Amino acid sequence: MRLATERARRLFAESPVARLATATADGVPHLVPVTFAVDGDVVVFAVDHKPKTTTSLRRLRNIEANPAVSLLADHYEADWTRLWWARADGHASVRATDAPAVRLLAAKYPAYAERPPEGPVVRIDVSRWSGWSAADPG
Amino acid sequence: MRLATERARRLFAESPVARLATATADGVPHLVPVTFAVDGDVVVFAVDHKPKTTTSLRRLRNIEANPAVSLLADHYEADWTRLWWARADGHASVRATDAPAVRLLAAKYPAYAERPPEGPVVRIDVSRWSGWSAADPG
Repeated sequence: MRLATERARRLFAESPVARLATATADGVPHLVPVTFAVDGDVVVFAVDHKPKTTTSLRRLRNIEANPAVSLLADHYEADWTRLWWARADGHASVRATDAPAVRLLAAKYPAYAERPPEGPVVRIDVSRWSGWSAADPG
Repeated sequence: MRLATERARRLFAESPVARLATATADGVPHLVPVTFAVDGDVVVFAVDHKPKTTTSLRRLRNIEANPAVSLLADHYEADWTRLWWARADGHASVRATDAPAVRLLAAKYPAYAERPPEGPVVRIDVSRWSGWSAADPG
């Protein structure tokens, strides 16, 4: 039921949304959903125009203090034999601009093709892809 | 677009799945999906019979070393005007058994009514409910 690295990476990459866990340096975790793109063992996401609850984003402050992050994509159904999840663990860095990352995001999301994200870009170097499926995902 | 506490709690409670972020004492975050129930300002989930990738569960080891956790429920659609998320931040504790929590879980999930979880139960005392919606969720 454990997924092979390649399978976990593919399921993760094909998901439209993932959840980003960061933590403060003293270990208080923080979670937000992110729209993202995958290029090999790199995950990118951007601060975009979707309205945020604050302008000083905790996700970015946490990454600057503590680059260890975890990202999770998952599939839920009432039929629990169809559940799966895929996770990317790695280290993140923040860049003021990153044109190749923005192109990747625009290729995945029509909303980004129409209006490319203009905020900072976060790049995660994934050190481990892992995953789980209740049944053989075929 | 920020959601009021009550609205965030309700959206969270009605979601079938949330993602649990724990962290090691030195701040390495860890993410898994969880099926859960809400009772006031308490979230409960159980270690159940859904097969796990390991028997020594990192989520439980992290909580014992560092009780700060974050849980996120979210809604994704290609139409980004319909996105929302709801988050519960708090502190977790692990109990070997917790019959009231198991009853709450069985009331929410038919699969648990049929086969109540027998593993340890995690209780999260939520200190903050928060959330965000792209549009007024009505």
